[in-house]
Amino acid sequence: MYKHLDKINSPEDVKKLNYKELDELCTEIRNYIIEVVSKNGGHLASNLGVIELTLALHRVFDSPKDKIIWDVGHQCYVHKIITGRRESFKTLRSFGGISGFPKTSESPHDIFNTGHSSTSISAALGMAKARDLKGEDYSIVAVIGDGSLGGGMALEALNNVSHLNTNIILILNDNEMSISKNVGGLSTYLGRLRTGKIYFKFKNELEFILNKIPIIGKNLYKIAAKCRDWFKYLVVKGIMFEELGFKYLGPIDGHDIKTMEKIISRAKNYKKHPVLIHVITKKGNGYKIAEDKPEKYHGVGPFLVETGESLSKNNGKSYSSVFGDKLIKLAQEDKRIVAITAAMPEGTGLSKFAEKFKDRFFDVGIAEQHAVTFSAGLAKNGFKPIFAVYSTFLQRAYDQVLHDICLQNLPVIFAIDRAGLVGQDGETHQGVYDISYLRSMPNITIMSPKSGSELEKMLEFALHIEGPVAIRYPRGEAPYYDFQDSPIEYGKGEVLFNGKHGIMIAEGTMIGSAIEICEILKKANIYMTLVNIRFIKPIDKNLLDELASKSLPMYTLEDNVYEGGLGSSILEYYSKNNKKVDLKIFAHENGIITHGSISELLKLERLDTESICNIILSDIKVDKNDSK
Amino acid sequence: MYKHLDKINSPEDVKKLNYKELDELCTEIRNYIIEVVSKNGGHLASNLGVIELTLALHRVFDSPKDKIIWDVGHQCYVHKIITGRRESFKTLRSFGGISGFPKTSESPHDIFNTGHSSTSISAALGMAKARDLKGEDYSIVAVIGDGSLGGGMALEALNNVSHLNTNIILILNDNEMSISKNVGGLSTYLGRLRTGKIYFKFKNELEFILNKIPIIGKNLYKIAAKCRDWFKYLVVKGIMFEELGFKYLGPIDGHDIKTMEKIISRAKNYKKHPVLIHVITKKGNGYKIAEDKPEKYHGVGPFLVETGESLSKNNGKSYSSVFGDKLIKLAQEDKRIVAITAAMPEGTGLSKFAEKFKDRFFDVGIAEQHAVTFSAGLAKNGFKPIFAVYSTFLQRAYDQVLHDICLQNLPVIFAIDRAGLVGQDGETHQGVYDISYLRSMPNITIMSPKSGSELEKMLEFALHIEGPVAIRYPRGEAPYYDFQDSPIEYGKGEVLFNGKHGIMIAEGTMIGSAIEICEILKKANIYMTLVNIRFIKPIDKNLLDELASKSLPMYTLEDNVYEGGLGSSILEYYSKNNKKVDLKIFAHENGIITHGSISELLKLERLDTESICNIILSDIKVDKNDSK
Repeated sequence: MYKHLDKINSPEDVKKLNYKELDELCTEIRNYIIEVVSKNGGHLASNLGVIELTLALHRVFDSPKDKIIWDVGHQCYVHKIITGRRESFKTLRSFGGISGFPKTSESPHDIFNTGHSSTSISAALGMAKARDLKGEDYSIVAVIGDGSLGGGMALEALNNVSHLNTNIILILNDNEMSISKNVGGLSTYLGRLRTGKIYFKFKNELEFILNKIPIIGKNLYKIAAKCRDWFKYLVVKGIMFEELGFKYLGPIDGHDIKTMEKIISRAKNYKKHPVLIHVITKKGNGYKIAEDKPEKYHGVGPFLVETGESLSKNNGKSYSSVFGDKLIKLAQEDKRIVAITAAMPEGTGLSKFAEKFKDRFFDVGIAEQHAVTFSAGLAKNGFKPIFAVYSTFLQRAYDQVLHDICLQNLPVIFAIDRAGLVGQDGETHQGVYDISYLRSMPNITIMSPKSGSELEKMLEFALHIEGPVAIRYPRGEAPYYDFQDSPIEYGKGEVLFNGKHGIMIAEGTMIGSAIEICEILKKANIYMTLVNIRFIKPIDKNLLDELASKSLPMYTLEDNVYEGGLGSSILEYYSKNNKKVDLKIFAHENGIITHGSISELLKLERLDTESICNIILSDIKVDKNDSK
Repeated sequence: MYKHLDKINSPEDVKKLNYKELDELCTEIRNYIIEVVSKNGGHLASNLGVIELTLALHRVFDSPKDKIIWDVGHQCYVHKIITGRRESFKTLRSFGGISGFPKTSESPHDIFNTGHSSTSISAALGMAKARDLKGEDYSIVAVIGDGSLGGGMALEALNNVSHLNTNIILILNDNEMSISKNVGGLSTYLGRLRTGKIYFKFKNELEFILNKIPIIGKNLYKIAAKCRDWFKYLVVKGIMFEELGFKYLGPIDGHDIKTMEKIISRAKNYKKHPVLIHVITKKGNGYKIAEDKPEKYHGVGPFLVETGESLSKNNGKSYSSVFGDKLIKLAQEDKRIVAITAAMPEGTGLSKFAEKFKDRFFDVGIAEQHAVTFSAGLAKNGFKPIFAVYSTFLQRAYDQVLHDICLQNLPVIFAIDRAGLVGQDGETHQGVYDISYLRSMPNITIMSPKSGSELEKMLEFALHIEGPVAIRYPRGEAPYYDFQDSPIEYGKGEVLFNGKHGIMIAEGTMIGSAIEICEILKKANIYMTLVNIRFIKPIDKNLLDELASKSLPMYTLEDNVYEGGLGSSILEYYSKNNKKVDLKIFAHENGIITHGSISELLKLERLDTESICNIILSDIKVDKNDSK
């Protein structure tokens, strides 16, 4: 039961409160978010940082007539709670529940779907030009973090702003972090704006002296005034943004609703001019545990509110930490190894590497394109760069992977984490496209490990490949099997079982399901040959020839979309070699996959063991007395 | 016969000349470039603009020990000519000849392959960190145009510079253009740096007065000195770049070799610091015709040197102009139509549209990512954006197409020009990946017209599709056939011929070859069914069912890579529907395709009519007395 929050059903209700009540509401919202996220998991620190900002925005603007676009969207919880989704917020990120990101399908207050960073300025500018062309009148606001601002497409949009002669209001939510600590010149510059140390010191000194000597005559006086203007322009008003065409307002305290309302209201009046409001917020604000470790509490699983302790029961190591630990071992022996991340040292398992090999670790910020071509430069000059990146974020660097790495055949290793379903982050984050988008690139080798131990072996193996390599592995715990991995050989799959009724070819994490499926089918007296394909590219031609010669029903199983994936690659091979096979592809047939637990999503996609078994059972009929 | 040029076999030879001789050499190189490009076609204006700059760089640095990276690479002709490729330069862009872009395989002086814009800073930074880690000592130089600097990945790299604590020398080749006139805040800022008008005026005024009154006492004098320093820092030295961590030198005249040498030499001394040298050049410098119309003479086919007149014999209209003209007609009737380009109004055929519908046309500069999400914003707010873009450059916006357009199912039309082989620009520019990378995205419709008239119809049709649409069409002249197009129906192919011996399914430009192939085969009494598939996605299921029922040898023909293309899509359909077919895919099997004429490249790829006919002839044997 919340005194104020329980009455907030729309932004209008927020407008009715006085500042004391607003303060209380903030506390209530903070507690509510902590309560829900501690159960469902989600983005914590980023949302706690924008409670006051969100309320200020909704008090000044008239949503959804005025349009608020949340960059990335992992800070939209407060917005959701006060725009009619207070109760449904309890279903956050659960299957069938509300999404952790803005979704136009959920509410008219959600203007533009986001998930990946740095898109909001472009979207806002597009909507603003549409508004102008239609002769309409309302505000369009983009809220973007200082980390996202460094992403290439946000910078492209910033650069385009002045040319478009329109008003958008950019709220720069400066919390000195992206997901991890921010890097880069822009961030240093924002730091200088925040503290204004050197500038203000000199400015004050200058003003003091100039004010002391007003008698020198007209010319100097004029100069003095001009000088003051210049400093106001150059320093106080954020020259870099002004040079790009913005009216710069700030920096202001992002936890002071009253001041924010004043400044934001002023911004509404610049009709033909883009305005940037520089707001300073604190990630995790008001929840000490998250304030102290905002990186750790950026995105979390269920946790104990009192201590912040994780409630996830992981028995084993995650793929990410298997990767990180193995890379450290390899790097100790091979000095050519360098590691690159785009603002994800923690998520990709590279934090320990970063501590141990300070000089050989590069966090380039949210800048996947630069990360890839920067890796190309390192490779060109003799190193073995490993770029660890989530599947969904590597999409940002499609062209760089193709144009700078694959066409030049450079030995860069892509450690593609969160490949396949990622679960609760939903459609914008599912890593189900990478096989398709990488497979058509020349020179690249694509591998998929079935287990932690196989990931270790593949990583080691990849160092000896003279060209680009992608190793894709999923989110979560890495299984270890109690049978021995056969040694990795280039382009060779591994036959796990031999059975005479059918053939299943699976990749990576789907090997786990495939083993289960084979076990279930055994009970129906159906014995399957199971292949761990290991190399999605190049495909194992000899093995495929051998399999085709058995003339059995074949099935492929992959954690990737149907189009252009592993199954497709096998069809292509058989077509090219004039072999007719009876092959069924199990892959994601809905290119868009919502949020939920991975098992719920597999079921939805009909890729759960039961659905697959049923299909195979209806295909393969065996004599009950038949044996393996 | 050239007096100096004939003796230039390496950069060392350039170092031996005095300034008078250098001037003469510049003239010789200019004439030589004009001579070769007027025959072979190529990038003209960009290369004429950097003759002096290239010589200055090679005089100051010691290539290939010092490493010069050319952004985009369409300004590397002078570099090629003076690094041992004077004679082979005559083979520029011809099949088997030297490439129009830097190629590490051609010369140790070519450090990093380029072709797409904005990659050089990232590559240089990667190489620089590798150098530092190895404890080596040499300079790494990136030459980047002001247009390319606005590309997102260049901005990401700029932002990362300060964090890396290393020296790279960035030559900002500021010619006030990318391919067309530059747009954007950065470009306006560079303009202010170039002219320094307001700044210098005030600076001079201030200095004048301060120098007149040196008697005011210690405090004011100190202030005056500080003031001067500040202005030097803020104005003369390019604050935006300084804020990002660069030492800024310039602006300097890019046609004055002596001054450039002085400044560039100074830059070599900043060992731990990145330096940006702002060089002002003139595109087309010294060739009046190109100076006057640098956009027209950026990339050219063969032309008459005296007049600049094109020697290409185009009988018909290019696909680009068919597109541009039709779009104007459609836009007159449908006010929702807006057009977007990323610095290519001329190349994509949008120039006339831009004149006619000034408010509804957006050139966002070299910023494909922003262009796509900006289009998403326009679509979200009720418009029908058409983003006209070369296939190879859309690669830059893979994630935006997927994440912002397809996941949200927004009605943005991608007019994908230069799809398939582009010819002389070679491997970095071949548009042979788009079917594969688009096909796995949800919600998108992909079409491919066989002719100019079909492109017109598809464009009109696309306006009525409530979701993203891609229409891919090739470089060059659009064929018109003397038979009528059947009306476009959603997801439906068009049967052009019925024959009883085999089936060929082709897309777009390959229909021309397919018709020829069918004609040739007829002479051998082989009658083919020919399908113009029209919709690559969704594929025409009914038609495919009908075709499969004929149990004939099937062939697909596409101007795209083999993996994940049209053929693959058809295999997937038959696999899903349990239909066994005898299907052979004709597509590009070498993911990397060199430069040359399109007919030479088709032969190389064994996609010429002869190669294909031979294969079909060896597959299909008919009784000589058999008739259609």
